Amino acid sequence: MTSQQQATMRTKTTDLQTIRGAVLYGPRDIRFEERDAPKILAPTDVILRLSATCICGSDLWPYRGISPVTEPTPMGHEYCGIVEEVGKAVKRVRPGQFVIGSFFASDNTCPHCQVGYQTSCQHRELVGGAQAPLLRVPLADGTLVATPELPSAEMIPSLLALSDVMGTGWFAAVAANVKPGATVAVVGDGAVGLLGVLSAKGMGAARIITMSRHETRQQLARDFGATDIVTERGDEGVARIKDLTKGVGADSVLECVGTQESMIQAIRATRPGGSVGYVGVPHGVELNGEELFFSHVRMHGGPAPVRRFLPELIDLVWSEKINPGKVFDLTLPLDQVAEGYRAMNERRAIKVLLRP
Amino acid sequence: MTSQQQATMRTKTTDLQTIRGAVLYGPRDIRFEERDAPKILAPTDVILRLSATCICGSDLWPYRGISPVTEPTPMGHEYCGIVEEVGKAVKRVRPGQFVIGSFFASDNTCPHCQVGYQTSCQHRELVGGAQAPLLRVPLADGTLVATPELPSAEMIPSLLALSDVMGTGWFAAVAANVKPGATVAVVGDGAVGLLGVLSAKGMGAARIITMSRHETRQQLARDFGATDIVTERGDEGVARIKDLTKGVGADSVLECVGTQESMIQAIRATRPGGSVGYVGVPHGVELNGEELFFSHVRMHGGPAPVRRFLPELIDLVWSEKINPGKVFDLTLPLDQVAEGYRAMNERRAIKVLLRP
Repeated sequence: MTSQQQATMRTKTTDLQTIRGAVLYGPRDIRFEERDAPKILAPTDVILRLSATCICGSDLWPYRGISPVTEPTPMGHEYCGIVEEVGKAVKRVRPGQFVIGSFFASDNTCPHCQVGYQTSCQHRELVGGAQAPLLRVPLADGTLVATPELPSAEMIPSLLALSDVMGTGWFAAVAANVKPGATVAVVGDGAVGLLGVLSAKGMGAARIITMSRHETRQQLARDFGATDIVTERGDEGVARIKDLTKGVGADSVLECVGTQESMIQAIRATRPGGSVGYVGVPHGVELNGEELFFSHVRMHGGPAPVRRFLPELIDLVWSEKINPGKVFDLTLPLDQVAEGYRAMNERRAIKVLLRP
Repeated sequence: MTSQQQATMRTKTTDLQTIRGAVLYGPRDIRFEERDAPKILAPTDVILRLSATCICGSDLWPYRGISPVTEPTPMGHEYCGIVEEVGKAVKRVRPGQFVIGSFFASDNTCPHCQVGYQTSCQHRELVGGAQAPLLRVPLADGTLVATPELPSAEMIPSLLALSDVMGTGWFAAVAANVKPGATVAVVGDGAVGLLGVLSAKGMGAARIITMSRHETRQQLARDFGATDIVTERGDEGVARIKDLTKGVGADSVLECVGTQESMIQAIRATRPGGSVGYVGVPHGVELNGEELFFSHVRMHGGPAPVRRFLPELIDLVWSEKINPGKVFDLTLPLDQVAEGYRAMNERRAIKVLLRP
């Protein structure tokens, strides 16, 4: 790209005074409305023109009123697209590149980033307002990873999935120490849980037990590599997993929900010395120290350090070894975002892709 | 040993109708009194004549009335000594051997034992009443490990320490993923915490920060390899550890107490992606799921699978590479067991060895 072209692109964005995007006003009140266009605020920022964005399971917490909404909040934190404008200090990311980033911007150089925990970056910033055509991404050089070339339209859903949901499922499997030949259980049949199945399969699990009572999700889980489906929940679900594993329990359990019930289910389904990888943002979860102690279960999780996995996962998508975009079972134009929330809230859709 | 000698030994034990040992009646009411001599009850049992026994920090929970005592309870679960009588199904353990075992008897063959979690053995049995001259140990072939020969008297305290306190400190370090060059913090300056220091040193930790405000314990910690002492507690203690680690936190933290305060301290002192190994039996500990999630800390612990480590730890003691017996700073004849409890309860002694 010539500097002439770059200048042109810059002009395009900076000319825009407003954009239209999704804003949450309160429980079930999501609006598609005009707001200020994002601008470069810090020299390490970039502005992206989004190729696609989507609705996250975690967006449903405030949508349902479980997490409070204190002011109108631009929604969305999953994104991929073309770099349109770069701040003066941005060195690695260039206009015209197709890039993917995570919901936490990170400098990728601090001590926490260096050991692969970019979502605990000492300078992390939340990326918000991605359900829109344009997005400001801070700490761009640390946050964004470019694809080898511009992708085909067919590949975009799978690349978008890497921004959060696939990276999160992958982290659940990493945190749960999934090893080749392992017996794995997955609690949660949302998009993250389903991609946790895909991740466990990718890491060589021999047996993958999915907890789901929803037929289309069971089918997708099987497509991704699930070998067994458990429809029971709570203690009955745990008993079923114990039955399936000769009373031993699973080596690795992926907790992809974030409720007290799902967490307890995950811990109790794990064998002593086995691991729970938990990535569902906990809501009201309290763990009893004594139960955890006598369970002998390893616990690891948290906000997935998606940035750590992006290069590897982009390779896997680019070489068509994985197709995580299959979790998008409803695609809508961005201006129908409210219908997208309704569909996910009512579990009519697993995950909704929005086209700006 | 000839079968004639074996027969003689059997006669000795079976002739004894009663022994005198420690029995807890209620808070601070420990009595040294006559009770039935232990007998072979199952063909996999053995009877040991104890060379030494001791008082555990966990014995103080019921002694202090924090754990309820519903009936007179023979105390003690740490032991080493000479095999005096073996049940008919015992194959590996032989009369006359000097052996060490753990507080949980285990078959060492079930799926949990096979992966090194013998304290979660599907057939585990608590070993109790070890503060006595004779002890019945179930599942003897799975539970007991013999020394290469009969040990010298000087080595017995270190071998006794392997029965619980050293194995537990070692497991804390294993569970906290201590690696060569690591920065380690240890919460708790009891015998387990001090031996956690020794374990971390043995695993190659570069820096070992001990939390202690007790001079003789600080000195022993330094003897065992501690490089820094933190006397502050709670949030101040955490802040001090952060200061000492350039704001990052420790790679591995050993939680060797079991209270809410100590557990929170351990989690908050750990860097994202770092590990807490917890071995203090939790009393009233509740972990907030959200805090744990955003901490990015790995958690592993539980009752230490001492049996896993016994062969390795016996080698280290036998070759005089470690001397965990240094934690015994008070030795009493068994009939003064009540004074031993008082000394530990008042923190006048770190750990009390009892000679039957």
